[in-house]
Amino acid sequence: MATTQSIIYVCSDAVGETADAVVRATIRQFSNDNVKVKRFSHIQTEEEIDEILNEVSNSFGFIAYTLVQSHLRKRMQQRAIKLKVKAVDVMGPMIQAYIDTFNDSPKPEPGQRQVLDEEYFKRIEAVEFAVKYDDGKDPKGLLLAEVVLIGVSRTSKTPLSIFLAHKGIKTANLPIIADTDPPEELFVPTDRMIIGLTINPAHLLKIRTERLKALGLPNKAKYASIEQINKELATADELMKKVNCNIINVSERSIEETAGLILKMLQDKS
Amino acid sequence: MATTQSIIYVCSDAVGETADAVVRATIRQFSNDNVKVKRFSHIQTEEEIDEILNEVSNSFGFIAYTLVQSHLRKRMQQRAIKLKVKAVDVMGPMIQAYIDTFNDSPKPEPGQRQVLDEEYFKRIEAVEFAVKYDDGKDPKGLLLAEVVLIGVSRTSKTPLSIFLAHKGIKTANLPIIADTDPPEELFVPTDRMIIGLTINPAHLLKIRTERLKALGLPNKAKYASIEQINKELATADELMKKVNCNIINVSERSIEETAGLILKMLQDKS
Repeated sequence: MATTQSIIYVCSDAVGETADAVVRATIRQFSNDNVKVKRFSHIQTEEEIDEILNEVSNSFGFIAYTLVQSHLRKRMQQRAIKLKVKAVDVMGPMIQAYIDTFNDSPKPEPGQRQVLDEEYFKRIEAVEFAVKYDDGKDPKGLLLAEVVLIGVSRTSKTPLSIFLAHKGIKTANLPIIADTDPPEELFVPTDRMIIGLTINPAHLLKIRTERLKALGLPNKAKYASIEQINKELATADELMKKVNCNIINVSERSIEETAGLILKMLQDKS
Repeated sequence: MATTQSIIYVCSDAVGETADAVVRATIRQFSNDNVKVKRFSHIQTEEEIDEILNEVSNSFGFIAYTLVQSHLRKRMQQRAIKLKVKAVDVMGPMIQAYIDTFNDSPKPEPGQRQVLDEEYFKRIEAVEFAVKYDDGKDPKGLLLAEVVLIGVSRTSKTPLSIFLAHKGIKTANLPIIADTDPPEELFVPTDRMIIGLTINPAHLLKIRTERLKALGLPNKAKYASIEQINKELATADELMKKVNCNIINVSERSIEETAGLILKMLQDKS
């Protein structure tokens, strides 16, 4: 275990999001809660690289970098060896595999991150869509969505919608409420895929009880009673049968896992 | 250029999000619009790996993998060499750098992705917060937020809020509207950081005109007139001076770049 602060330095001539993602996934593989990530974005000169390497060599850490510009990449490699600093090239091996396999060359200009292409705008639009049509706010969203998530309160509809939106998928969600009819838009046939999110009653009870505690509300509220939960889940069950949708139990799944299953369903459908 | 379908296979014993992120960043470095990504998640057995490798060896593509379980990783490496399939280990080099630098070992159990830890729930909560307090819907959010984004319509407040939320930062946003006073909560001192989003008038005119077209509305609307835009931007300018906030011009920046600047400001502040 580290006795001084452990630091992973993310260095990029773009924003550094990709290297950051891999660094965080790496950190999750270990038990040390005390690793800091320090990011240097938009690196433009070899002098900046030299300065960063000097800092790292005097600290307790290593570098994860994505450098598209080859002179910066070379500088990083050479100086890291000289100063005995570990520097991991996050994208290099994959770019090489791409070149070798598809016999293609990378675009000559640096900073592809800035390309605000069609996919980028599709993603932005999908995020705005998900926010706009969250929680059944406007039933029109049910007609326009590619994916509609239905489920009782606290089945992770909102974060899931946002996660799918980040993949460019227009997602709306609708809460299932006992003794309340869903909007008729849910029954109009469209090309959308409806997904029912279900959850084990005991698990939901725990989540809702904690939710009330976090909100500073008494935990005897009907919202967090097993009777109410069973009633709501029965309503949900009935509705999901009626719309004949795919059902995912979210009890033991993270958002990204559930989203992974939905992406797979969409992939299989198309 | 490829004459048959180019495919990059993402393989993981978890969801595969990390490998997917690096693959998509790699694809952006090239001009080929015709590369498909095919994902295999939750790989559990060596037989599955054999099947995937057989498929890849009969296609035009290569593999990007994250395999935490060492017997799966070894199988992938050995079979890939045998079948002459390129297989890039996305996290391996960084995990090795971590081990060597910090003298630590990875957690023995597979599937760290499933750890629903504090950071995970903080992120979920931040996403729900950003959706709830989007677009000034409830001024209370301005008091509870860590970051408040203010700006006129179409300065990317919503997607930016969501992006920051994914980093665990509670973000609210408030539209600046000409001839309308902002809620008093904006002037109550708290620990939050207020960020003003500004944009060049000509750029905003273009975005709004396209927006109207997308919505099927006449492009002569006041919303997309240079007079109205100048008036709104003047209001914004005045308000940003009044609250004395950091200002970012989003005209030539992607969401992730602007978010990168905000994260840097937060880092420098703490």
